Amino acid sequence: MLHGNAILGQSGGPTSVINASLCGIIQACLGQKAMGRVLGMRFGIEGFIEGQVIDLGRQQSATVEALRWTPSSALGSCRHKLCDADFPPILDMLRRHDIRYLFLIGGNDTMDTIHRVEQYCRGQGYELIGVGVPKTVDNDLYGTDHTPGFGSAGRYVALSVKQAGMLARDMKRVDQFVIFQTVGRSAGWLPAAAALARSAEDDAPHIILMPERPFEREKFLADVRRAYERCGWCSVVCGEGVCYADGTPISASSVKDKFSNVEFGAMGGTSAAMMLHRLIANEFGWRGEFQVCESLQMCAADRVSPTDAEEAYACGRRAVELAAEGRSGVMVSIRRESNRPYRWSLDTAPLAEVAVHAKPMPNEYINAEGNDVTPECLEYLKPLIGPLPEYTRLEAVPA
Amino acid sequence: MLHGNAILGQSGGPTSVINASLCGIIQACLGQKAMGRVLGMRFGIEGFIEGQVIDLGRQQSATVEALRWTPSSALGSCRHKLCDADFPPILDMLRRHDIRYLFLIGGNDTMDTIHRVEQYCRGQGYELIGVGVPKTVDNDLYGTDHTPGFGSAGRYVALSVKQAGMLARDMKRVDQFVIFQTVGRSAGWLPAAAALARSAEDDAPHIILMPERPFEREKFLADVRRAYERCGWCSVVCGEGVCYADGTPISASSVKDKFSNVEFGAMGGTSAAMMLHRLIANEFGWRGEFQVCESLQMCAADRVSPTDAEEAYACGRRAVELAAEGRSGVMVSIRRESNRPYRWSLDTAPLAEVAVHAKPMPNEYINAEGNDVTPECLEYLKPLIGPLPEYTRLEAVPA
Repeated sequence: MLHGNAILGQSGGPTSVINASLCGIIQACLGQKAMGRVLGMRFGIEGFIEGQVIDLGRQQSATVEALRWTPSSALGSCRHKLCDADFPPILDMLRRHDIRYLFLIGGNDTMDTIHRVEQYCRGQGYELIGVGVPKTVDNDLYGTDHTPGFGSAGRYVALSVKQAGMLARDMKRVDQFVIFQTVGRSAGWLPAAAALARSAEDDAPHIILMPERPFEREKFLADVRRAYERCGWCSVVCGEGVCYADGTPISASSVKDKFSNVEFGAMGGTSAAMMLHRLIANEFGWRGEFQVCESLQMCAADRVSPTDAEEAYACGRRAVELAAEGRSGVMVSIRRESNRPYRWSLDTAPLAEVAVHAKPMPNEYINAEGNDVTPECLEYLKPLIGPLPEYTRLEAVPA
Repeated sequence: MLHGNAILGQSGGPTSVINASLCGIIQACLGQKAMGRVLGMRFGIEGFIEGQVIDLGRQQSATVEALRWTPSSALGSCRHKLCDADFPPILDMLRRHDIRYLFLIGGNDTMDTIHRVEQYCRGQGYELIGVGVPKTVDNDLYGTDHTPGFGSAGRYVALSVKQAGMLARDMKRVDQFVIFQTVGRSAGWLPAAAALARSAEDDAPHIILMPERPFEREKFLADVRRAYERCGWCSVVCGEGVCYADGTPISASSVKDKFSNVEFGAMGGTSAAMMLHRLIANEFGWRGEFQVCESLQMCAADRVSPTDAEEAYACGRRAVELAAEGRSGVMVSIRRESNRPYRWSLDTAPLAEVAVHAKPMPNEYINAEGNDVTPECLEYLKPLIGPLPEYTRLEAVPA
């Protein structure tokens, strides 16, 4: 068994449970005799290249345990695409700290980083075991049934849409519509998760826009009108990356309003939800609001899905077991064993494959109209997001 | 003691605990022999005028109890300013349903409604007892130490700013700033609540903009730069109603960006946070995000402040006791008895006074620079919002 120190890092955008994975890796590493010291890179591979390394083995054990319920990326993160010039200093750092185990928690770019660092080291005759731990709220990572971080972000979305939908229903005499924008540039998993907000027939959301389907203005406005005629108000959930058929993001649309023509795209800092808000307000003359929560979806530790937290932690521990077994070049993945009851196990996916593929929503998860999810999709989502609170509703008992 | 039926209504924007007050009123009314049936007006006084009345005494008791933890306005709400033509149909409805007790949960406009209906009835020789239950997330209601609904909305704000601040700290190499916009047009209580997000020196928020102080562009940008130089990132919380010294809302500002001149105000659906985002991005060339949660702050039942929920329920019960004692023309109010430990009691305020006054933040709660709150303000806020979760932070133990 390879003897040396271990280095841990976090990369890309945080999730509510990325520190649960970090906790799992640290605790498991501390139990491995072959792994001497447990080190952490500050701000991902970027900080590592600069020499920013801290000792995770000398943290208080209560601190490490508390990571399990702490949001954001405790080590700091980065978005750095490796270039050729990065490899020699990385190898220098690995040698200097006698590092033989590399664990990074991240998405496909991060898996690419591990893969390329490991390959470079092999070429230089430096033995290094690299294992990836999956993470992304977007759930678009290849080679795993789902990705740690998604369930909790989806829970935030579903809870928000459920609560705001009740409010919109009760306030329909004042405001007629509400739009919630989720993160996720190219995959519709997060807007899809909003579908779990529904209990009753007229519950929010009424329309779900996913980036997998092109936005059609007239179709959308007809859908909004139909929802309004049915319920007296309308709830729309849209992914931030929804585009027209020609690939132009709707957030970059030129929208003509009552007063002037404005090119949104040129201004920066605009959003899909705002564009839809303008569209509906101009078409129907209604009042409404748009909700743009951005990174709040990625860090709401009080809204974590228990399954998600458990899986994130287990993925971290499993990565260390795999490394101790000499498995390198793999990412821990989650396999769904059954839906009712929900059972899962851990597996692996080759880093090289995860790095180059993505996982958009399957066609059979999106309805024919392209404005909602299918029952199959709900089956997939339910165990990941967990049951939502049930709220009450008064009976319309006539006086 | 006056015998007759009771009618209950909810008015204005919801809060996370407005149904707790409703629950308190219903349960207390059902225990009063003098009050025959317990009726509810759908969509406030507007629905009442139209004859939309349901029987709350014939709801299942489990439904009524579950209202305590159900967000939004279960009866439906409205924003209706009474006009002279409204009074005769209101009196007709009161007579038709033999209503002698009127309970409305709302803000100052709602208190005005009760007051004017009661006066009108008196003038017409119809005996009616009207009692108000306070409600508003803005906390700007006169005659009460604080208002049910505020503590929970403030908790949502503080939690969000705390979590997003940790994320911004860990992601400072990618994004340099984050802006959170709170509701509350004219009072700064909600942006102020964000100050409770801080544990450590560099925690969010770094700058708090309250509508009580004029926005000064150069001062603001200097504050942003100072925060960035100190922490490497910057968190700003702003009330939606922040204005320039001349009274123009900053959300209506004309902001010159790199590409074009745009009048925000004319377009509608813009926001203070977006304007600040543009301002910072243009001045410093940084990346960042703005968070506009809107009504999500008013309905997050899973983020309720326990004190707030308890007080909201108690205010509802107290309103019925007051009515049963023959007290009319008053709003239940909350008196703070002590801070450590926090103790409170219930009192009353005359409807006529509540209707015409507002409660902006006192000067001594805002710091001299006008960009933060004072320790006195934190003392005021803490018991209302309750303790926030403590998250951990890694020690920078060098490797």
